[in-house]
Amino acid sequence: MTYDPDNIFAKILRDEIPCIKVYEDDLTLAFMDIMPQAEGHTLVIPKTEAQDLFNLEPDMASALIRTTQKVAKAVKKGLKPKGVMLAQLNGAAAGQSVFHIHFHIIPRQGGIDLTLHARDQADMSKIQEIAEKIKAALE
Amino acid sequence: MTYDPDNIFAKILRDEIPCIKVYEDDLTLAFMDIMPQAEGHTLVIPKTEAQDLFNLEPDMASALIRTTQKVAKAVKKGLKPKGVMLAQLNGAAAGQSVFHIHFHIIPRQGGIDLTLHARDQADMSKIQEIAEKIKAALE
Repeated sequence: MTYDPDNIFAKILRDEIPCIKVYEDDLTLAFMDIMPQAEGHTLVIPKTEAQDLFNLEPDMASALIRTTQKVAKAVKKGLKPKGVMLAQLNGAAAGQSVFHIHFHIIPRQGGIDLTLHARDQADMSKIQEIAEKIKAALE
Repeated sequence: MTYDPDNIFAKILRDEIPCIKVYEDDLTLAFMDIMPQAEGHTLVIPKTEAQDLFNLEPDMASALIRTTQKVAKAVKKGLKPKGVMLAQLNGAAAGQSVFHIHFHIIPRQGGIDLTLHARDQADMSKIQEIAEKIKAALE
């Protein structure tokens, strides 16, 4: 499988479709998952054409985890979940649905069994509000 | 909560208890999870006292993801799962049970719902055999 430049995250990177951004630097972008598994579910992607971990340059893997760590800290500080899970899925068999590599940052409150496959869109004003809390915690 | 130097991964790093190692460098260690969620479940840890992502130096986060990527590629090449999931859990509420930061590399075959909490020890000779396949794929 080759990288599909029309995947939804590629379109977000080209500003062809909007996202609720929480952080951006030269190499990476973090934004809210609009079909969240939990309140505060955030995604982090590299600005490079890589479908999964097996196709990502090691330097970009470093940039990706550093931004993921930075944003996860902000999620923790801003939203105060009891726990935070990182997940990164490679291949449809692992639950990957967008074929541009991404890290999930998922707040956890404990006791809730989580699937990475729920696909209901959340209230956008609520997500915007959560994004503001994360952005405030980044500053 | 402060770092507990008697956690099981700290003991592995000090060679006080054994592990089935698949890769090691100056900064990181990768070894088989002996209570695997799936065949080939591997763990990657940094050689530093950090309980979770919030307490890890960014340089060590880079080292950790690079080794995780390297070993995940070997898991893919050596065991040929349909997919590979990375997970990294912070806090008991997120399912963390050993408080030394670690990445899970979990082969996925699709269609199997996964919890990160199963805790049955596997047949050690079988795990050793799987480790050999991963090590061979690293070379």
